[in-house]
Amino acid sequence: MELLSALSLGELALSFSRVPLFPVFDLSYFIVSILYLKYEPGAVELSRRHPMASWLCAMLHCFGSYILADLLLGEPLIDYFSNNSSVLLATAVWYLIFFCPLDLFYKCVCFLPVKLIFVAMKEVVRVRKIAVGIHHAHHHYHHGWFVMIATGWVKGSGVALMSNIEQLLRGVWKPETNEILHMSFPTKASLYGAILFTLQQTRWLPVSKASLIFIFTMFMVSFKVFLTATHSHSSPFDVLEGYICPVLFGTAWGGNHHHDNHGGSHGGSYGGSGPGSPHSALPAKSKEELSEGSRKKKTKKAD
Amino acid sequence: MELLSALSLGELALSFSRVPLFPVFDLSYFIVSILYLKYEPGAVELSRRHPMASWLCAMLHCFGSYILADLLLGEPLIDYFSNNSSVLLATAVWYLIFFCPLDLFYKCVCFLPVKLIFVAMKEVVRVRKIAVGIHHAHHHYHHGWFVMIATGWVKGSGVALMSNIEQLLRGVWKPETNEILHMSFPTKASLYGAILFTLQQTRWLPVSKASLIFIFTMFMVSFKVFLTATHSHSSPFDVLEGYICPVLFGTAWGGNHHHDNHGGSHGGSYGGSGPGSPHSALPAKSKEELSEGSRKKKTKKAD
Amino acid sequence: MELLSALSLGELALSFSRVPLFPVFDLSYFIVSILYLKYEPGAVELSRRHPMASWLCAMLHCFGSYILADLLLGEPLIDYFSNNSSVLLATAVWYLIFFCPLDLFYKCVCFLPVKLIFVAMKEVVRVRKIAVGIHHAHHHYHHGWFVMIATGWVKGSGVALMSNIEQLLRGVWKPETNEILHMSFPTKASLYGAILFTLQQTRWLPVSKASLIFIFTMFMVSFKVFLTATHSHSSPFDVLEGYICPVLFGTAWGGNHHHDNHGGSHGGSYGGSGPGSPHSALPAKSKEELSEGSRKKKTKKAD
Repeated sequence: MELLSALSLGELALSFSRVPLFPVFDLSYFIVSILYLKYEPGAVELSRRHPMASWLCAMLHCFGSYILADLLLGEPLIDYFSNNSSVLLATAVWYLIFFCPLDLFYKCVCFLPVKLIFVAMKEVVRVRKIAVGIHHAHHHYHHGWFVMIATGWVKGSGVALMSNIEQLLRGVWKPETNEILHMSFPTKASLYGAILFTLQQTRWLPVSKASLIFIFTMFMVSFKVFLTATHSHSSPFDVLEGYICPVLFGTAWGGNHHHDNHGGSHGGSYGGSGPGSPHSALPAKSKEELSEGSRKKKTKKAD
Repeated sequence: MELLSALSLGELALSFSRVPLFPVFDLSYFIVSILYLKYEPGAVELSRRHPMASWLCAMLHCFGSYILADLLLGEPLIDYFSNNSSVLLATAVWYLIFFCPLDLFYKCVCFLPVKLIFVAMKEVVRVRKIAVGIHHAHHHYHHGWFVMIATGWVKGSGVALMSNIEQLLRGVWKPETNEILHMSFPTKASLYGAILFTLQQTRWLPVSKASLIFIFTMFMVSFKVFLTATHSHSSPFDVLEGYICPVLFGTAWGGNHHHDNHGGSHGGSYGGSGPGSPHSALPAKSKEELSEGSRKKKTKKAD
Repeated sequence: MELLSALSLGELALSFSRVPLFPVFDLSYFIVSILYLKYEPGAVELSRRHPMASWLCAMLHCFGSYILADLLLGEPLIDYFSNNSSVLLATAVWYLIFFCPLDLFYKCVCFLPVKLIFVAMKEVVRVRKIAVGIHHAHHHYHHGWFVMIATGWVKGSGVALMSNIEQLLRGVWKPETNEILHMSFPTKASLYGAILFTLQQTRWLPVSKASLIFIFTMFMVSFKVFLTATHSHSSPFDVLEGYICPVLFGTAWGGNHHHDNHGGSHGGSYGGSGPGSPHSALPAKSKEELSEGSRKKKTKKAD
């Protein structure tokens, strides 16, 4: 019985990993990505006054992961744009979200139950991209561990890792922050996922790729849906990092007061704060969660 | 008779499309491009105090189109710099424009009738670059429409699309604007030309490539010479965009007041303003036209 | 006797050019590079609060030359990161320099006689990188002089030429300056070295590659060790540039007053000032020398 259920789970995972992403899952990815572009301050005005810039930003949000991975692996940056149907679909989503009469399309996709479905489907695409990216990197660099992790990471994080450039395209410049300094949950999860998938690809993690895709997708879907539904800013990694980071990166045991008095008292984690540190940074909020917060305030004002 | 004149026009267009660009037309391209670099505030001082930075900016002005196209198509960014003769010619033009005794060379090329000839020849090079770029992209991506349009666009626009980077090299940083937000006439025309040449390459536009090169070149030469001679800031596309853009990208019919009160009242076109909108942006001025304007003021002061 | 000593010198140069760089020389390169990262204001706090960003900056400092050369030559940016052992060694150096208990490792490598040995060994790596880079570029572009010089230059200068990007990663943005505007001694020396190695590669300079590597390395080692030991800001090129640059790039003999009154009176050299110019720029200080200066002040305060 156990063997049968294991086989069924294995087959389920295998079928799941082979589900074609185009067009339904890709559509969800485009909808959620461009929704978060719309939440950015000034994005609607940008679409009215500078539609070309707005469209380019939308394309970066939809295909940024492919652009970054191509840059790392020395392939044409514009390679993915040869998929005309994907670009046309993303363009249609951009147009409907920004220019649909009475904002009908926007209101439909923003209806929370519907939105949560799209968010869940976006995570399916994210995890699949990480897995495919690592497989692709492995093909070129059989033993390039760092290459595989980096490729998986950029495939999962997408436009977030090039947020400064995407903002610059919109005429916004905020050099004091970037996604590496203040990592959001999806970016962090993409990094950890890239490490897991690299371990699996190099046979250090004894699971099948399909099973890992399935398990990691379930993890990502659960947390992203929960965070989106509750507008929460926490991250499931904070607790673990709160213990590990002070040990690895904490106070340098009295040796750094010459150079930086603050350095000794932070014990910081990735963009977050360890317990009891007086100069803690704000908890890393998901760019999506921050946008959600400001969007909620705007809708409340409008009601 | 009509057949004979059609054949003659066809042959004329074919001969025109095969005229070698090096060295005469390329020389004109370099002269006009580096002239516009000289018009930039602080460019002369830059050449005196930081000649290396000045030379690099001049090379970006002359070869920026090749660099961007290579970046998109995954080829070495420095590929075009293997043409030693072109680089040496551009270097000679840079040196003569910035360092010729008594500014003799500069004064010669700035004499309006002479300058208009160079401007006309630069447009011949621009259109040829668009056509060649699209042909090159088509070779790699037979059905990549967006790839072809993007490649043709960057080949035609050149350094304008990387203006932020070129300015950064000079120590200038203006993140609030870029060529996508405020498209000048040459950039816009390059985009429309890239679309036309892509339609021709994929046989949707039933004209020969030579004829399209000829017709589009005549269009570009006429308007650029007119705009340069009259120091005008208008664009031949404004009227058409003034009708099409409010329809495609105009007020979202009452549905966007939640997110951006300004969004509903603009009906803006590409960087320009529709009629009657209270928060209109300044008309998109050609970077060359703006530089021309400030240059005219300086020469008037000096007279 | 002379023939024998010439043969011995030739063999010495040949053996020297074949000394394997990994792991000892590479280790020195990583130590010195990451030391200079630590000297940057806020770097220690960055390592505590944002270790991922700190590690990425350290990797840029160690491998920036490979990344830039790959970008120029159209190869995968991440190619060098397939050398797992180099990346792990650099990571270990980063960890020890920033997180070693009581800063023991840092204090050891900062002890001046020890540091001077590492500085000398770093220059061996720098010169070898320039030579290899030019050989690699020559392989792709047999007659691409500018390509070879550019590739050698970026291989020698490394992260300095991408300092704006490396600072942006740390949340610092200083657009008013960059390494091209204000060239430090290593960057300038890398450029001149690239020119010499290109002349040798194309057989215009009648010396063997091994001899040129040996001679140029001795030059670089001598000056870098002297500059580091004396915390000097001067450059051995200033005198020569002080004579050549006013002739090549000096006052445009009365022809530039229309456009820039300051332009005529500077006669500036590369980022430096010619004699007697009223608005002279500060002498170009090596980023390393400036960091040395501020480090010395901090250690004096702490004593």
